[in-house]
Amino acid sequence: MSDKAQQTAGSNEAYGKKPFKRSRSHFADRITADGRDGWPVEAGRYRLVVSRACPWASRALVSRRLLGLEDALSLAVADPIQDDRSWRFTLDKDGRDPVLGIRYLSEAYDARETGYPGGVSVPAIVDVPSGQLVTNDYQQLTLDLATEWTALHRPGAPDLYPEPLREEIDAVMDGIYRDVNNGVYRAGFASSQSEYEDACRDVFRRLEETSRRLADRRYLVGDSITEADIRLFTTLVRFDAVYHGHFKCNRWKLAEDPVLWAYARDLYQTPGFGDTVDFDHIKRHYYQVHTGINPTAVVPLGPDLAGWLTPHHRQDLGGSPFGAGTAPGPVPEAEEVPPEGRP
Amino acid sequence: MSDKAQQTAGSNEAYGKKPFKRSRSHFADRITADGRDGWPVEAGRYRLVVSRACPWASRALVSRRLLGLEDALSLAVADPIQDDRSWRFTLDKDGRDPVLGIRYLSEAYDARETGYPGGVSVPAIVDVPSGQLVTNDYQQLTLDLATEWTALHRPGAPDLYPEPLREEIDAVMDGIYRDVNNGVYRAGFASSQSEYEDACRDVFRRLEETSRRLADRRYLVGDSITEADIRLFTTLVRFDAVYHGHFKCNRWKLAEDPVLWAYARDLYQTPGFGDTVDFDHIKRHYYQVHTGINPTAVVPLGPDLAGWLTPHHRQDLGGSPFGAGTAPGPVPEAEEVPPEGRP
Repeated sequence: MSDKAQQTAGSNEAYGKKPFKRSRSHFADRITADGRDGWPVEAGRYRLVVSRACPWASRALVSRRLLGLEDALSLAVADPIQDDRSWRFTLDKDGRDPVLGIRYLSEAYDARETGYPGGVSVPAIVDVPSGQLVTNDYQQLTLDLATEWTALHRPGAPDLYPEPLREEIDAVMDGIYRDVNNGVYRAGFASSQSEYEDACRDVFRRLEETSRRLADRRYLVGDSITEADIRLFTTLVRFDAVYHGHFKCNRWKLAEDPVLWAYARDLYQTPGFGDTVDFDHIKRHYYQVHTGINPTAVVPLGPDLAGWLTPHHRQDLGGSPFGAGTAPGPVPEAEEVPPEGRP
Repeated sequence: MSDKAQQTAGSNEAYGKKPFKRSRSHFADRITADGRDGWPVEAGRYRLVVSRACPWASRALVSRRLLGLEDALSLAVADPIQDDRSWRFTLDKDGRDPVLGIRYLSEAYDARETGYPGGVSVPAIVDVPSGQLVTNDYQQLTLDLATEWTALHRPGAPDLYPEPLREEIDAVMDGIYRDVNNGVYRAGFASSQSEYEDACRDVFRRLEETSRRLADRRYLVGDSITEADIRLFTTLVRFDAVYHGHFKCNRWKLAEDPVLWAYARDLYQTPGFGDTVDFDHIKRHYYQVHTGINPTAVVPLGPDLAGWLTPHHRQDLGGSPFGAGTAPGPVPEAEEVPPEGRP
């Protein structure tokens, strides 16, 4: 994501005038099996645009891997450092996405709606033939990958949003969204001490509750990985690297909470999770883009990442990561995270 | 201290133009037993001015307590938040130091040298009768308390700078000064990525070496507390609270290194160390004054300080904190750190 939020936080002038408020996704069309919004699920038709820095986009990276959608839904990875025109394809040859042929993600927004005045955010799905943005609705996007794209799932793909558990998954995700996923941003971009303190207290209250919940169960809901785990993971994996220092969520490090730290390592070491994570993109994005809170743009050397690869012993709690399914295969070579992004 | 360094870092305009360089102390007169600089040791004549936020000034706070100099050398505590005129006595009634009668420490500098163009720093010792600054030489000041003020030491005061160990103490302190005491500032106020990285690497290289040294010995040099321990302590006690996040020294937290964390807790729990520490002053000073690196001036809620009071088991290593001496008595009531500054 990182649309309005960053633009505000990135500008010293704009900073500190109003409380942090996350923009709603403007383009909420859905890609469905029945194509009722005009966008039917179809192999090879769409392109997923992400930044590996962004926790909201990273949900889609994980889901796509777990569901084996790599061939059906191609991937564009934006430069972790936006410029004035936002997310750009400067990591690609000649600074253009090789499939969409555009330099900035905003061009796909423009193709969809001329003069759209809102922010440009990831994750985004673009219709390749027309070059138009289909959706930037980060809350719905992964649910649709799990439930509408089933015809294109790999054999053995897990059910990430099982019907009988949806009510519980939604309730868990709702609290975690408000207090943790978005809570860290409210803390980091707070424009006053009291706004920061309220947000930071929410973050740790919810993390402590979640830690208790996970003390004797391997996953958040049911016995296998669900959408709820994916959403918690993309925040936890950033916690010590950026939220602890940069966003001042520093009551403790993730590495200091034995339960959450083991839970996060378990997921990190599960195929489809850690292999999507680029700590280099994460750190450079947060520390270099948010000059409103880090004016020097210096990127810290820490934390030591070696701990992510240590044994977690969470398998002793039972459960099975993929339910009746199987683990995803290896990462496509072209999508491998380079060594500087890994522990 | 916090003179030039802060003034530079506190100004967005000035920030980032040159590498951080600590000013030398301009006023280096010594108060000695023989009075050779014109300032003889004398009970009740001088006033020690500190900020409890400042690690350099806090050395003197610890030494004064360990040596029992509270009655001989009175204490003025400055507001942790400086204004344009630097350290000020806004914590005192009517904003004036009750003994010196001044509102700003700079008035004592002016009394000593009219139009002195340098920075105002703590620790400072002021001659009460004349109101003149005697010294702001933070490197010499505590050595003189230990070796020149002996006639006024309490019965049972430890020898903090024993003759036979001075060479070793000096060597240890020299490396720790360069890489740790001052290294954290070089990291935090770095004006470029490479300057930061060099400093941050120095910090952790020296801390790791120091951790190995302290693995099987209770104190840095010899079997008892010396000046070297005092100087390392005043940096370590600030490490997780401010240097880890605010100065980006975040390879690991002090609390993640079992040896250094136990060593720091041991000293914190030793009379004369922890009872001088005000975490509230420390956090507010760093986060609110250095707007060049923390433009929002938001002060983090963390870290959780409860760990400072947990058992350290360092007594099992042998040694005796005060050598042939004894522990200092209780803190004078007027000098007690208020509850908000304590774990």
